[in-house]
Amino acid sequence: MTVDLVVKNAKLVSPRGILEGGVAVDGGVIVALAKEPNLPEADVVLDAGGKVVLPGMLDGHIHTILPPENSSTGTKAAAKGGFTTILEMPGTQMGGFDGTQFALKRDLFKATSYVDFCIHAGCAAGYPEGTLTEMWNMGSTGAKFFVSSAGPKWPQTFDGEIYAAFKELAGIGGLALIHAENDTLLRYNEKRLKEADRRDYAAQLEWRPPIAEAECGQRIIRYLKETGCRGLIVHTSLPETVMNAKRAREEGVVVNVETCPQYLYLTEDDVRERGPWVKFAPPPRDKETVAQTWRLLQAGLIDTIATDHAPYSRERKEEGLEDIWAAPNGIPGVETFLPLLLTGVNQGRLSLERLSAVVSENPARLYGIYPKKGALMPGSDADLVIVDMKQKWTIRNEDMITACSWTPYDGYEVQGIAVHSFVRGEPVLQDGEVVAVEGQGEYVPRMDP
Amino acid sequence: MTVDLVVKNAKLVSPRGILEGGVAVDGGVIVALAKEPNLPEADVVLDAGGKVVLPGMLDGHIHTILPPENSSTGTKAAAKGGFTTILEMPGTQMGGFDGTQFALKRDLFKATSYVDFCIHAGCAAGYPEGTLTEMWNMGSTGAKFFVSSAGPKWPQTFDGEIYAAFKELAGIGGLALIHAENDTLLRYNEKRLKEADRRDYAAQLEWRPPIAEAECGQRIIRYLKETGCRGLIVHTSLPETVMNAKRAREEGVVVNVETCPQYLYLTEDDVRERGPWVKFAPPPRDKETVAQTWRLLQAGLIDTIATDHAPYSRERKEEGLEDIWAAPNGIPGVETFLPLLLTGVNQGRLSLERLSAVVSENPARLYGIYPKKGALMPGSDADLVIVDMKQKWTIRNEDMITACSWTPYDGYEVQGIAVHSFVRGEPVLQDGEVVAVEGQGEYVPRMDP
Amino acid sequence: MTVDLVVKNAKLVSPRGILEGGVAVDGGVIVALAKEPNLPEADVVLDAGGKVVLPGMLDGHIHTILPPENSSTGTKAAAKGGFTTILEMPGTQMGGFDGTQFALKRDLFKATSYVDFCIHAGCAAGYPEGTLTEMWNMGSTGAKFFVSSAGPKWPQTFDGEIYAAFKELAGIGGLALIHAENDTLLRYNEKRLKEADRRDYAAQLEWRPPIAEAECGQRIIRYLKETGCRGLIVHTSLPETVMNAKRAREEGVVVNVETCPQYLYLTEDDVRERGPWVKFAPPPRDKETVAQTWRLLQAGLIDTIATDHAPYSRERKEEGLEDIWAAPNGIPGVETFLPLLLTGVNQGRLSLERLSAVVSENPARLYGIYPKKGALMPGSDADLVIVDMKQKWTIRNEDMITACSWTPYDGYEVQGIAVHSFVRGEPVLQDGEVVAVEGQGEYVPRMDP
Amino acid sequence: MTVDLVVKNAKLVSPRGILEGGVAVDGGVIVALAKEPNLPEADVVLDAGGKVVLPGMLDGHIHTILPPENSSTGTKAAAKGGFTTILEMPGTQMGGFDGTQFALKRDLFKATSYVDFCIHAGCAAGYPEGTLTEMWNMGSTGAKFFVSSAGPKWPQTFDGEIYAAFKELAGIGGLALIHAENDTLLRYNEKRLKEADRRDYAAQLEWRPPIAEAECGQRIIRYLKETGCRGLIVHTSLPETVMNAKRAREEGVVVNVETCPQYLYLTEDDVRERGPWVKFAPPPRDKETVAQTWRLLQAGLIDTIATDHAPYSRERKEEGLEDIWAAPNGIPGVETFLPLLLTGVNQGRLSLERLSAVVSENPARLYGIYPKKGALMPGSDADLVIVDMKQKWTIRNEDMITACSWTPYDGYEVQGIAVHSFVRGEPVLQDGEVVAVEGQGEYVPRMDP
Repeated sequence: MTVDLVVKNAKLVSPRGILEGGVAVDGGVIVALAKEPNLPEADVVLDAGGKVVLPGMLDGHIHTILPPENSSTGTKAAAKGGFTTILEMPGTQMGGFDGTQFALKRDLFKATSYVDFCIHAGCAAGYPEGTLTEMWNMGSTGAKFFVSSAGPKWPQTFDGEIYAAFKELAGIGGLALIHAENDTLLRYNEKRLKEADRRDYAAQLEWRPPIAEAECGQRIIRYLKETGCRGLIVHTSLPETVMNAKRAREEGVVVNVETCPQYLYLTEDDVRERGPWVKFAPPPRDKETVAQTWRLLQAGLIDTIATDHAPYSRERKEEGLEDIWAAPNGIPGVETFLPLLLTGVNQGRLSLERLSAVVSENPARLYGIYPKKGALMPGSDADLVIVDMKQKWTIRNEDMITACSWTPYDGYEVQGIAVHSFVRGEPVLQDGEVVAVEGQGEYVPRMDP
Repeated sequence: MTVDLVVKNAKLVSPRGILEGGVAVDGGVIVALAKEPNLPEADVVLDAGGKVVLPGMLDGHIHTILPPENSSTGTKAAAKGGFTTILEMPGTQMGGFDGTQFALKRDLFKATSYVDFCIHAGCAAGYPEGTLTEMWNMGSTGAKFFVSSAGPKWPQTFDGEIYAAFKELAGIGGLALIHAENDTLLRYNEKRLKEADRRDYAAQLEWRPPIAEAECGQRIIRYLKETGCRGLIVHTSLPETVMNAKRAREEGVVVNVETCPQYLYLTEDDVRERGPWVKFAPPPRDKETVAQTWRLLQAGLIDTIATDHAPYSRERKEEGLEDIWAAPNGIPGVETFLPLLLTGVNQGRLSLERLSAVVSENPARLYGIYPKKGALMPGSDADLVIVDMKQKWTIRNEDMITACSWTPYDGYEVQGIAVHSFVRGEPVLQDGEVVAVEGQGEYVPRMDP
Repeated sequence: MTVDLVVKNAKLVSPRGILEGGVAVDGGVIVALAKEPNLPEADVVLDAGGKVVLPGMLDGHIHTILPPENSSTGTKAAAKGGFTTILEMPGTQMGGFDGTQFALKRDLFKATSYVDFCIHAGCAAGYPEGTLTEMWNMGSTGAKFFVSSAGPKWPQTFDGEIYAAFKELAGIGGLALIHAENDTLLRYNEKRLKEADRRDYAAQLEWRPPIAEAECGQRIIRYLKETGCRGLIVHTSLPETVMNAKRAREEGVVVNVETCPQYLYLTEDDVRERGPWVKFAPPPRDKETVAQTWRLLQAGLIDTIATDHAPYSRERKEEGLEDIWAAPNGIPGVETFLPLLLTGVNQGRLSLERLSAVVSENPARLYGIYPKKGALMPGSDADLVIVDMKQKWTIRNEDMITACSWTPYDGYEVQGIAVHSFVRGEPVLQDGEVVAVEGQGEYVPRMDP
Repeated sequence: MTVDLVVKNAKLVSPRGILEGGVAVDGGVIVALAKEPNLPEADVVLDAGGKVVLPGMLDGHIHTILPPENSSTGTKAAAKGGFTTILEMPGTQMGGFDGTQFALKRDLFKATSYVDFCIHAGCAAGYPEGTLTEMWNMGSTGAKFFVSSAGPKWPQTFDGEIYAAFKELAGIGGLALIHAENDTLLRYNEKRLKEADRRDYAAQLEWRPPIAEAECGQRIIRYLKETGCRGLIVHTSLPETVMNAKRAREEGVVVNVETCPQYLYLTEDDVRERGPWVKFAPPPRDKETVAQTWRLLQAGLIDTIATDHAPYSRERKEEGLEDIWAAPNGIPGVETFLPLLLTGVNQGRLSLERLSAVVSENPARLYGIYPKKGALMPGSDADLVIVDMKQKWTIRNEDMITACSWTPYDGYEVQGIAVHSFVRGEPVLQDGEVVAVEGQGEYVPRMDP
C-alpha cells in the first residue's frame, strides 16, 4: 500500500535515543517507523540526507496577540522558527478569562493560525468561580496566573484568589501556570527607585531581584502542596526555584518548571548595556546563575523550555532608551529559539535527546496533548521538524518575519536551523521558508488521560 | 561579711541542671551560689523549704497598654504571675514607632511598672528609614512587624517595607519580631466568609488556616536568609514553622521561634465551643498539632515561650457571642502562664531545666539582656522566682487581678504556682501576693554583646 | 518489499507507553513499527488479537548450571517462562573466574542454549589482578561478587579484595554485581544458633536478619562511591537499601538495585511454615517490607527484577525438612517469574510500562546490550514476547519443565502468561510450548557505548 | 564559717560563659561560687590574679600501662599536663576484659594514681556473655571495642560479637567505645604493601586510608541504631564520621564522637617526613581535613577530645626508622594536650567555653560522672585547673616527665599552660610542678542517672 509521505535517511530523535531510519505518514498521522528498505511506498519521498528529525516542536508560552504582532503574523513567525504547535497565553489585548473570550480566541486562531494551536486560560482578579472549569471543559491546556501586576486589563490576582483557584483546579485535574514574582516587593522597589529618579538600565535589576522570584516560587509550591493542584512555574530564571520544585516533587507535589532561551543567553551585563532591548520579566541573571541553568537543563531538572515571545515594536522599546521604565516588558523569540538551542547542542551543553524532551515530549505531556503531539511514534500526528545541525549563520534583525521585525540576538553567531517541517503531514516549512497558509493550523484541545 | 539576703534550702534550676543549695544576694545582685553552711551571713534569710527557685522569668511578648488594662495593672498582674521582667510590645493604643513614642512609653513604665521592663520597637508602614536604628540606640529589644493587618492605628507593612527594614536591622545587629500570617489569604477568606454571612465560631478557623501561617513563616525565613537579619517568629502555632526554622539555622540563618501556652492548652474544639473567649491570632490548632508542639518544646526546638497577653474586657469579647467577627483578637495570660507550664512539668511533658531555658535564659539571650537577666549566677541581677510545685488549685476568673478580670482557663485544674519573687533583691511577690509598688520596676535597655 | 514476519493487531509496550499497531521483522531485526494498513507485506503474519507484546525479556540473574539443571534444561525452562535472553551467573559448579573458564562456559551455552545469552564474570578470592579485565574484554556483562560465603568452590572475597576489584572495574567501566550480606554477622549467628541446636525453620530468619543486608548494602555503596565503580546490588529484599542507593545516585554514585519475585510474593511467615522450600538468601521479609517493595518497584526506584533461579532438586531440599541447615539456599524461578508479575499488573500494583522497564529496557541498558536487546524499535533484535493478560491459571509442580520439577509457588492462582515469543525473529515459544531447539541461542557480548 | 580553700579573682569558665569571681572549697567539694567580697573566709586563699580556671579536666582515653610507662608515671605525667581525672583504657599489657582483671586494675590505680581515675572495660573476642555487665556493675565507664586488630593479647572482635555485645550493653544502658577502622581493608593493604616491599613512611597512609575509617564509622553507627546501644566513636580523624554521627543523632541514635590533638596538629606531611614518631592509628589526614576538624570542634559537632596517650619508648619507635612496620602505633600526649588546645584558643580557633565543654563537661556527662566531675558548681568535686593563657613556651623532649621522655611536638611553639590544679580540693599541680603523691587519686565509679 502506498502512503502519503515518507521521510527517509533520517536521524529520528526522541528523549530515549536517536534512531537511524525513516518515518512514514498517511492521513496526517505517522503510520510507520522503519529501517530502509522496509519503509512503505509513498507518493512523496523526502530524503533527509542524514539530517536530524525532531518530533513536532511546541511553544508552550507565546503571546502572538500583541501589536504589531497578531495571531497570523505570530504563528507564521513561529512556523519559520520550526514550531508545529503553539500554546497561546492570555494577554492584555485579548484575555481568555471566561468561556466567551476563550471561544473568540480559539475561533480567531482557527481562521488565522499557520500551525496547530492550543489556548491557555487566564485567571484574573474577580473571575467568577467555575470560570476555569468552563474553559477547562472547552479544552484549555492550562490556567495562567499573574502573581505580579500585568497592567490594567488584567486585574492582578492575590494569594487568596490564587489559593481558591488552585483548589478549583485541583478538583478538575487542571494545571496552573504561574509567573512567580513577589509583586509587593516589586512595587516597593519601583516606588523607591522612582523616588530616587533612577531611570538607568541597571534600575531594572534592582526592581526585580532574585529574592522576589525565589520567594514567590517557594510560596506557590507551598500552595500547590496544600491544595493538591498541578503547577508549572513558567519562565524560571533561578536554580533555587528549580531545586525547590525537585524537592517538592519528592514529597509528592506535582510541580514542574519552564525556562526560556533568554535565561540561557542573556545576563545582567546585557541589561546594563542594552536596556530596553533586553527588558523582560523576570530579568536576566548573573553569569554563574546562567551557567547553572544550562547544567540543570541538561540534567533533566528543568522540564520544558518555551519562548515567552512578546513582540513589542521597536518604537515601544525605544521609549525606554532614556527612561527604562517607559519600555514594556517582553522580547520576541520564536525565530531564534531553536537556533540558539541547537547552538547549545553543537557546543555540547545540551544533548539532542534532552532537547527533544524539553521542546516536544515534556510540554506535550504536561499540557495533555501527548502522544498526539510531541512524539515520533506510529499513531501520533505527523508533526516533524527537519533540522540542519551544521549550518552556521548570523541572526539579523532584517531576517526576522515577526511583525516587530527585531530580535535581541541581532548579530549573534549560531549553528543549526530548521529547514523543513510538517504539521499533520502537510508541509509548513520548506527550505527555510513558510509554505503553510493562514488558517491551516487546527485547534488541539487538551485530551483527558 | 553580711549580705542583704540569702535564700537557702532551695532547688536552684538552670537549663543545665538542678543544684541543691542556696543563693546570696547583695546590692541587688547575686553574689554567691553555695551549699550550706557556706552561704554568707545575711540580714534576711529565707528558707525555701526545698522549693524550686527559677531564674527571673521574662514575658517577652506582652501588651499591657490595652484598656481596661494599663501599664500599672498589667505589670502588677505579671508580677502576680511570677514574672520579674516584661517586654512590652508596641500596640494600637501606644505605638512605639519612633524615638519620641519610644521615650514616652519608656517613661510611662518607669513611673508605673511593678517589675523590670524592656520596650520592643514597632515597625509600621511608612516609617522613615533610620527609625528602627534610633530606637535600637535607645535600648529597644526588638522590632515588631505586623505582617497582617493590626487595625487603623498600626498601618500594615508589606513585603517591600519588611524586606527593607530587615536590611536596616541587619546593619545594626537588630532583631525582627514577626507575627507571621499571610494577610492576603486572611483578607480573602474574611471576605468570602462574610459574603456567606458566616458569623459562627468555626468561621475563625476557616479565616486563619494553618497554610496562612505556614506560608508566611517560610517567606519570612527566606527574607531573613537573604538580608542576614536576626529574627524571632512570635506565637508560632505550627510544628512546620518550627522545623523550617531549624533547617534554616542549619544553613546559617539566625532565626528562632516563640510559642505561647494557648498553643499548648487550647485546640480547635475550644474555638468551636467557646468562640470569642478563645479568639486570638493565629488561632488554636488541632489536637495532633498541639501534641507535637509539646514535643518540640521539650526537644529544644522551640526557643522561647511568652504570653501574648492581650487583656480585652469581657464586654469587648461578649460582642462576639452572636457574631464572632465583632470580638477582638487576644486573651489575657500573665497570671495563668506559669501554673499551666508547671502543670506540664508535673505531668512529665516538660522538664524544669527546659522550662527555665524557655522562660528565662533563652529570651534573655535573644533580647540581649543576658546574663543581667535570665541567669542564676553570681553577678546577675537578683531576680528569683520561688515556686511551689505541689500546690493543686483551680483557676478562677474571680481570682485574676488583671484589669480585664477574666481568663480563658476559668475552671482549669492546675498544679504549681509562684509563691515568692524578687527583682534585684527586692521582694515583689510574697506568699502569692504582690508586695512591690507601682514604679518599682526599672528600665532594662538592651546590652551590646 | 516483503519482510519475514509481521506481528499485527498488538499492544506494543515500552516504558514510555503502549502503542496499538504492529511490528515488522526482517533478517532477525525489527524493521518497522507501524499502524495498519502500513505494515509491510510479510511471509508470515501473526495476528496478535489485541494482545500485549513486550520487548524481549531478560533474566539478568540466573544459575542454570546447577544439578539436576544444566544449560540446556535451564534455558529451555527460561524460554518456557517467556525469557528471550538470559545472563548466566557464575556458580559453584562452573566458575567463570578467569578467561579460560569464561570461554568454556560461553562455548557450552553456544552449543546448548535455547535462548540468547550473556555470561557474567565472577570474582573469587585470590583472583589475579587483570582477570576481570580479561573477561570484560571477552564481553562479560558484569562481575559477580560474593560478599558472603558461597561454599568451598567459590573462595569468598573480603573487603580488601572487593575494594581492589572495584578499582580495577572502575578503570575499565565495568559493572560489579553484589550479593550484599554481612558474612561476619551471618557466621556469628550461625554459630550461636547451632550451639543452641536450633534446626527449626525460623532459625533461618535469625541467621540472616535485615541488619546483615542493610549494613552490607551501605558498605558496598560507600566503596562504589570511593572507587567510582558502577554497581548493581542484586536480589535486594530491603527498602532501606533501595533508598540508600537512591540517595547515593543523587550524589553521583552509579549504583542500581535488583529485586526478585520472591521478595514480592513470599514473607517470613512462609519461612516459618515451609522451611527448606523457601530457603534462599537473603530470606523473605515481613509483610510491611514486602508491601513497600512493591511500591518502590512501581515508583521506579527499583531498577530491575530477575529470578535468581537456583533449581536445587527436591531431594536436596528435603534434606532440610528436619534440619533447616541441611537444605541448600535457592529456589527455581524462571517459569513463574512473568506470571507472578503479570498478576501484579492485573491487580494494579505494577503498570505494564514499569514492567517492561524492569524486565527489558533497564537490564539491557545496565548490562550494555541495549538497544540490541530490550527495545521494541527499528534496528533492535526482533525479540518479542506475546502475552495473554487474561488467562487465569494455577501454578503446578507437575507443569514445570525445569529439571528440578518443583516450584515454591505450587498451587498459586495467577493471571497472565507468555504464549508466543521470538528471538531474532525466530519462534521460540509457540502457543505456550517451546519450539526452539538446543543451541539456537546466540552469545551476546556486552557492547561498548 | 571558714572553709578550706578559696580561689579568688578568677575567670571561671563553663560551656555557658565566663564568670568573674571566686570559688570556695570545703571538704573536697565546691561549696560556693561568689563575687567578692561575698566569698567565705578560708584557711587558704589563692589569688588567681585574673587567670582562667577550668573545671577539672578529664582524659577520657589514656593508656598508662604501657612500658616504659606505668600507672604511676603515667598519671603523674597526666597531672603535669593539667588533668584531674583520667579514664584508663584496656590495653594489651593489662586487659580489663572481665571482673577479675577489672578489679586488679582498679586496685593498682588506687595504690599508684596521682589523680582521680575511672576504668573502661574492654571487649575482646570470645568474652563470655555477661562480662560487660559484670564490669558495668563494678563502675566501668565504657566498654572499648577493637574493631581492628590490636595484637595477640587482645583477640579481635568481629561484627557478630560486636553486634551481640552492643545488644548486651543496650540492655544495661552501657556505653560502647569504638576504634573504627575496617580491619579487612587494613589487612589487605598491609599484605599488598609488604608484598611490594614497601617499608617507607608513606606506606602507613596507604595502609590506613580514610575509606577504612569512614566505612567502619558508618557501619558502627548502623549497629548502634539497630541495637539501641549508646556509642562513642573514639579518636575520629574524619569530618565524614562526625557528620554521619550528627545525622544519626537527628534520627534518635545515641552516638557521639571523640577526636585528639594529633588530628588537629599533625598531617599526612608529618607522616611522610617523620615516620615512626607520628605513627598512630588512624593516621593523620590531609590539611583540608584537619582544618575542617577544627571547624567542627568549634561548631559543637565533636563532643569530646582526649589524648589516646600511648607512650612507647624511643627505642621501640626507632625500630621503625628503616622499616615503618616495625614501629608500634601510638604516641605520648598528656603533657602537650592542654598547651596545644590553649594555643588554638589564643589563635581564635576554639573558644574557652567550647574547650571546657569538650575536655570537662561533655566527657563527664558521657561517662556518667557528671556533675561530680566536669563541673564548676556548688556540690561538685573541687577539681580545678588554673591556667596561664599568656605564657609562650617551646615544647621540649627533655621537659617531658612521661617515662617515655619524648613527644611528637618537640620544638613546637605554644601559648598557654596549666599552672595549678586541685583534685577534691587537694593541690596536685603547683607552679607547674606535681605536688600530689602516688596513690592520692581516688576511684570514680560511674554513677547511675
